[in-house]
Amino acid sequence: MNTTSTTLNGQSIIAGVSTQGTGRETFAVNPATNEPLEPVYSLIDGDQLRTATAAANEAFASFRAVEPQLRADFLEAIAQNIEAVREPLVARAMAETGLPEARLNGETARTANQLRLFAQVVRQGDYHGARIDPALPQRVPAPRVDIRQRKLPLGPVAVFGASNFPLAFSTAGGDTASALAAGCPVVFKAHNAHPGTSEIVGRAITQAITDLGLHPGVFSLIYGPGSSIGQALVSDPSIKAVGFTGSRAGGVALMETAANRPEPIPVYAEMSSINPVIFFEGALDDPQAQAQAYIASVTGSSGQLCTAPGLVFVPRGAAGDALASAINGLAPGTNGQTMLTPGIYKSWVNGVNQLSAQDGVQLLGRGEQGAGENAPAPSIFATDVENLLANPLLQEEIFGAASLVIRYSSAQELSSALAALEGQLTATLQLTESDYALAAEVIPTLELKVGRILINGWPTGVEVGHAMIHGGPFPATSAPQTTSVGSLAIERFLRPVAYQNFPQQLLPRPIADANEWNLTRRVDGTLKIAGE
Amino acid sequence: MNTTSTTLNGQSIIAGVSTQGTGRETFAVNPATNEPLEPVYSLIDGDQLRTATAAANEAFASFRAVEPQLRADFLEAIAQNIEAVREPLVARAMAETGLPEARLNGETARTANQLRLFAQVVRQGDYHGARIDPALPQRVPAPRVDIRQRKLPLGPVAVFGASNFPLAFSTAGGDTASALAAGCPVVFKAHNAHPGTSEIVGRAITQAITDLGLHPGVFSLIYGPGSSIGQALVSDPSIKAVGFTGSRAGGVALMETAANRPEPIPVYAEMSSINPVIFFEGALDDPQAQAQAYIASVTGSSGQLCTAPGLVFVPRGAAGDALASAINGLAPGTNGQTMLTPGIYKSWVNGVNQLSAQDGVQLLGRGEQGAGENAPAPSIFATDVENLLANPLLQEEIFGAASLVIRYSSAQELSSALAALEGQLTATLQLTESDYALAAEVIPTLELKVGRILINGWPTGVEVGHAMIHGGPFPATSAPQTTSVGSLAIERFLRPVAYQNFPQQLLPRPIADANEWNLTRRVDGTLKIAGE
Repeated sequence: MNTTSTTLNGQSIIAGVSTQGTGRETFAVNPATNEPLEPVYSLIDGDQLRTATAAANEAFASFRAVEPQLRADFLEAIAQNIEAVREPLVARAMAETGLPEARLNGETARTANQLRLFAQVVRQGDYHGARIDPALPQRVPAPRVDIRQRKLPLGPVAVFGASNFPLAFSTAGGDTASALAAGCPVVFKAHNAHPGTSEIVGRAITQAITDLGLHPGVFSLIYGPGSSIGQALVSDPSIKAVGFTGSRAGGVALMETAANRPEPIPVYAEMSSINPVIFFEGALDDPQAQAQAYIASVTGSSGQLCTAPGLVFVPRGAAGDALASAINGLAPGTNGQTMLTPGIYKSWVNGVNQLSAQDGVQLLGRGEQGAGENAPAPSIFATDVENLLANPLLQEEIFGAASLVIRYSSAQELSSALAALEGQLTATLQLTESDYALAAEVIPTLELKVGRILINGWPTGVEVGHAMIHGGPFPATSAPQTTSVGSLAIERFLRPVAYQNFPQQLLPRPIADANEWNLTRRVDGTLKIAGE
Repeated sequence: MNTTSTTLNGQSIIAGVSTQGTGRETFAVNPATNEPLEPVYSLIDGDQLRTATAAANEAFASFRAVEPQLRADFLEAIAQNIEAVREPLVARAMAETGLPEARLNGETARTANQLRLFAQVVRQGDYHGARIDPALPQRVPAPRVDIRQRKLPLGPVAVFGASNFPLAFSTAGGDTASALAAGCPVVFKAHNAHPGTSEIVGRAITQAITDLGLHPGVFSLIYGPGSSIGQALVSDPSIKAVGFTGSRAGGVALMETAANRPEPIPVYAEMSSINPVIFFEGALDDPQAQAQAYIASVTGSSGQLCTAPGLVFVPRGAAGDALASAINGLAPGTNGQTMLTPGIYKSWVNGVNQLSAQDGVQLLGRGEQGAGENAPAPSIFATDVENLLANPLLQEEIFGAASLVIRYSSAQELSSALAALEGQLTATLQLTESDYALAAEVIPTLELKVGRILINGWPTGVEVGHAMIHGGPFPATSAPQTTSVGSLAIERFLRPVAYQNFPQQLLPRPIADANEWNLTRRVDGTLKIAGE
């Protein structure tokens, strides 16, 4: 197996072929210095895009028929190829994103782990959703014929890289990994903020495709302007689903394009969330520690996490005052960290200016501007439920290290505030046993608003497992019945098909009697565990 | 338990209360005579609609918390109440729809069986999707906290009655049964073609709600104009999902309304399908029997079935000619049956006139007009692949007893025709063992086009089981990843939520350690069967 080259050439990789774009040129910017980074990246045009989608379409026939073992090997080979270039990859990602080395090393490990998790999912095979309703020839009034069901991949998937996870939600991130695991070729639109990071990972994927002899159209990495090439990608008839992590405006635009195609397709967009955290009275016994944990969650990764706590409910009264006062005391000790791009920094400044100008919103604490460019001072504001309810602008996500403390004076006021929230990725309860009764009243409301509820933790830090939901009602996501993190993410790219009265020779292997992949299957409604 | 009254009063049932509509009046028409049927039905206005949706919203909190046993009892009570009024119900449905008694008796049984199937699904509990990833306190580099997952109902659901299944896809049909099973209150918009049938079944549901002491807002039956009240229902912020079976134009209009809400919601619309049937050479050994089976599938229920075979591929050559000739010989012996409404009859006439006017389309056989009104002569046309590929109008569904035979001259021509088809509910292969090789080439194309593939059967007649898929790519449905028939239909109305680091006292019962509902759960990725 060859080592993936980490020499950047600034070209898209279309079905394995390095391709000079015929559109305009662009380059990455080091956000810590506002200096451009080599090399120049050439953006592709519509014809080049269609070469990628046509290749994905052509690859689909063979890729969906690949044996589970080979598909799992493929995912693991990508993981291994990425780990093999971790040092230059992390170095480039640091330069392109301003994120610290430890964070990017951790993200590299997470990216590889996600690929390996999906390799397990593919080998284990429950995702086939195999079901068999055997024939009942003696049934009255009419016999039943044999009906079986399994899930199939949807077809080529468009994946858009996120700015804030240049590895784990980017080129070989969760969307790509789960789509490939499902058997869907991927056309990946790189985020223009980290083109070099994307190129290195794109080569790691391409290398795995070559080494394992898969069709080169299984993966393409393209550079292009989001507003034109991104929209063209989602409009392309070969594309059958879309994975996206980014802004609400960007996600909604893709939702509209997808819904207005001659054949509408699903868009899995993870967009906007302010992740309310609720302090109950009992949890206020250690204001210093709580304030510290809160500030750490607000400022980590310069606040650029989908699950950063943007709204924190704190009860009125002495204990809540003590927490507010601890936040006020600790905030000045925080330092700004470089944000991902100058544009994201500008949006943060605009958002914070807008928030601080609202009636009834006060600054609670502000840190120091960081060294270098685009490293704004973390800022925490305060207001009360009345203002929150009166002003929808207070619910707008500010992407970056800013947060709003909401003081509430009664359980009833808290409930009315929570009922007025839009859909969220997470909600968090800070409590002790004395608060369980009140929490039990609030949880049913939260369940209808969010994808994940946490107790006594902080929402930043998303486990990649089997029970995780990284999703939630609109506008947190466009597809609240799904998750973009964890093993269930594969479901987004599958569709069930029923087979009625098929002879064994024509049945797909997941549902043939021989069960050669040793799958757990639902027979007449009851699960039959593989091998039992 | 009281018997459901079958005396019609022409009123909506809003959260248990018979409600005179303040809008205009309408009445059912006996399509066999074009005579109006008593009583007059009053249509509701927007305020009355909001009473129904507000009651559904209020009922949701208690209904979603109902014990599985009670929810299952509720579904079974509805089934029993419907069976108790079978005779007057079927009599009214016959008068309103023109469908024959045997068909409506069968549909009553199916409706009750669907409700009982979902009662089983509720008792068995796999639909909770319970998952547990236990804490790993010793994990490096960071410990894992306990994360669990279960599925929750979405909230109140709007269900639109279908014209062609006045029982099984109507008031207490598959959409209502699966939504109630999931824990979603239902606001049911009756089809104005069978208001009396809807009223009787609505009372059966209301009776079960009263007898079991459920919140009356769990179910409302409303009469209103589809274009205004139907759209207002889908726009109502309390409504969180939509079930619909009907025309492509109607379904697409609801999709647009749902997508353009401030909070978009899923629409499960089953719309348009022409259900291709493919004869291979080996299956042409008994043209008389094959032609008879084909004609029976085309003409059953006056052709008004979602899965009726609208497109039949027959090879050129002597054997195919013999089948065409048998169809030509048998068709004149068929008799028209009353269609559901004068409007549906008119659409059929327009559709058949349009089809017969197309270049290269010939009449292959026509039956006799039936006795009474709205009973057109079943009509079968013929053309070839070249014409099919050249003219998209040949793919338009004609709802009713009409079908188009397509002659094909080679496997390649067949493949190109199939590749050009829109999404379908079903595709059917007529074959013998000598055709397996060719079928194996065609099946991968069909898998991407349809929800169900049949071999040596006819697509009309949809089993209600665990492996059934009644769904398929657009325009067959708006949600190709789901089914509207069978136990999986419940999934449409559920959404997963994750619970992180919850104490046992606050965990929902499906995922608490005690497992008091004895559920099969996925623990760390592996299924643990209940009781094992």
